[in-house]
Amino acid sequence: MNDLIEFKNVFNPVLNDLINKKTDEFLQNTNDPFIKDFVLYSKNLISGGKKIRPYIAYLAYKAFGGTEDAKAIRFFVSFELFHNFCLIHDDIIDKGTLRHGFKTIHNYIFEKLKQEERVGNLEHIGNSQAILMGDLLFSWSMENIDNTKFPKENLLQAKNYFYKMVDEVCLGQIIDVDLTTRINPSYKLIEEKTRLKTSRYSFVRPLQIGASLARVDYNAEDLFENFGTKLGFAFQVQDDLLDLIGNPEETHKNILIDVTDGQHTFFTNYIEENGTTQQKEYLKSIFGKEINSEDQEKIQDFFQSCGAVDAGKMRIEEDLTSAKTIVNNLAVTPEYKQKFLDLVTLIENRKN
Amino acid sequence: MNDLIEFKNVFNPVLNDLINKKTDEFLQNTNDPFIKDFVLYSKNLISGGKKIRPYIAYLAYKAFGGTEDAKAIRFFVSFELFHNFCLIHDDIIDKGTLRHGFKTIHNYIFEKLKQEERVGNLEHIGNSQAILMGDLLFSWSMENIDNTKFPKENLLQAKNYFYKMVDEVCLGQIIDVDLTTRINPSYKLIEEKTRLKTSRYSFVRPLQIGASLARVDYNAEDLFENFGTKLGFAFQVQDDLLDLIGNPEETHKNILIDVTDGQHTFFTNYIEENGTTQQKEYLKSIFGKEINSEDQEKIQDFFQSCGAVDAGKMRIEEDLTSAKTIVNNLAVTPEYKQKFLDLVTLIENRKN
Repeated sequence: MNDLIEFKNVFNPVLNDLINKKTDEFLQNTNDPFIKDFVLYSKNLISGGKKIRPYIAYLAYKAFGGTEDAKAIRFFVSFELFHNFCLIHDDIIDKGTLRHGFKTIHNYIFEKLKQEERVGNLEHIGNSQAILMGDLLFSWSMENIDNTKFPKENLLQAKNYFYKMVDEVCLGQIIDVDLTTRINPSYKLIEEKTRLKTSRYSFVRPLQIGASLARVDYNAEDLFENFGTKLGFAFQVQDDLLDLIGNPEETHKNILIDVTDGQHTFFTNYIEENGTTQQKEYLKSIFGKEINSEDQEKIQDFFQSCGAVDAGKMRIEEDLTSAKTIVNNLAVTPEYKQKFLDLVTLIENRKN
Repeated sequence: MNDLIEFKNVFNPVLNDLINKKTDEFLQNTNDPFIKDFVLYSKNLISGGKKIRPYIAYLAYKAFGGTEDAKAIRFFVSFELFHNFCLIHDDIIDKGTLRHGFKTIHNYIFEKLKQEERVGNLEHIGNSQAILMGDLLFSWSMENIDNTKFPKENLLQAKNYFYKMVDEVCLGQIIDVDLTTRINPSYKLIEEKTRLKTSRYSFVRPLQIGASLARVDYNAEDLFENFGTKLGFAFQVQDDLLDLIGNPEETHKNILIDVTDGQHTFFTNYIEENGTTQQKEYLKSIFGKEINSEDQEKIQDFFQSCGAVDAGKMRIEEDLTSAKTIVNNLAVTPEYKQKFLDLVTLIENRKN
């Protein structure tokens, strides 16, 4: 999608400038080479990622008449700083070792500590330092917002949505962690997680924040809530689908990680609700366990033949169709209507 | 000290109201009884603590002519929210099981998960949920600041100091964690940690923030830096001294935890720099190891007889005397000079 690529060409240098500036400032307080090294490593990880949240906020800003692109982009850098704070803490929680193809921060620090033959529980020390690196990025995201020069009213409203977003993504993540400890959770709880962690965090709040910076009375609160919710659910089910039947060369991830990690999804829930006793037993026998490469195809066939994959595809299509209908009711120019429709198509066609 | 007690009588209800309001708001997004339970548990932990940082900020606010007590106290609630965010993450890092006499949050969640016979690595899950609970409190501390109604200039300057404080306490904590992995760190690094984690965090920045809210041109930046640094170093060495020879009935902590945890302090460094070969060997033999109750007295005698305790006491006295001299040069009324001197005395006489 050209618009997103064009956006990134403008956005990435602003993001990088800010990270460089803050990192330099931060490191003025220490001369320790070990600490300097991992702070600089963290800096390089932050520039990765799809930049979908700042792009969505930017679309809403422009669609509602925003004209001060430089200021707006500066604000939207905070989405990426905040997102990296979330990812650093998520990677500790999920014990992830790679992110954007590089070592995760806790893993990088752990390896360096081992190399230097430091004393203590080095895995725990790696996690501890990564908790603190994450905390820093959260603070930098808030500080950056305070350094943007929007009118007080717009800024207050945008920040109000930002704080709601933080509460929601934290709670969504708490529910997500909690779900992994349950043998048979309700689909209601899975939906609660998706609503908070995906719909609100990645779609509804960025749209509201972008629009608020353009005009406080942007008057599309309900439409954004519905549009974002539909997009978010489609996005999440598609994410879970890519884990089941995506092409690892395109997703850049291993296949069937959700099954191995014991993640409850639309698909596992479909089997719990609609499967035969035998299908449920089979799911139980593979759930939360390591999968041999020779079993992968068998498990993929299982999710297909029991009807879960088709049901998921149908759910994605329904939600995306609803999202398009909502766009057609948005009080924005045809140009921006088209850009929002392109966004839906981008999500529809994504391969990773 | 009556002033601190009077302050707490006004401050605590404002803190509690805010936590109650935010918790209620937050829990509207979920019906899960398990999650509700540990969020409510976390809420009750937040009201503990000495409230020394908000009190110091309040002193500076009043000393520089601030008159809007209710607004100022509302702002200073953020020190406690932020401090609890730090403590929750610290407790995970230090594997602490008790805080203010109650189970730490990660420990509480871990115990509850075990009780409910949940699946997975429950200790790790407890830590994960506590990371997220901490993150939430950081966000609430920033949101609360944005809801105070100070003039834009004062608020910007105060927030500027607040962001510096966050950077400093994170870096101080990173250095602290790093120190535990080193066999023989430089005293420079230990001082770097104390300057950031104690002087700046607990004294310099609260003073600057309080004064900024009263008047942007409060004109005591250097004096606060020096006063706060002296107080911070005295406070830290005293903290380390209380760990060595304090009365557990007054400190409400076990004795010699720093030695057991392998924490490098003024006292261990004194031995490294001034001890005999034999004294250094003895320190090495006990450092970072469990201590039997029958060895406690022997170890306490060791720190006394080698001169470390006296050197520490002298350092505390020097720093506090310097702090008092600085107060006498502060351009504030005699009434507030006295209150600052009382603060020094409070720290001088503390038993926990």
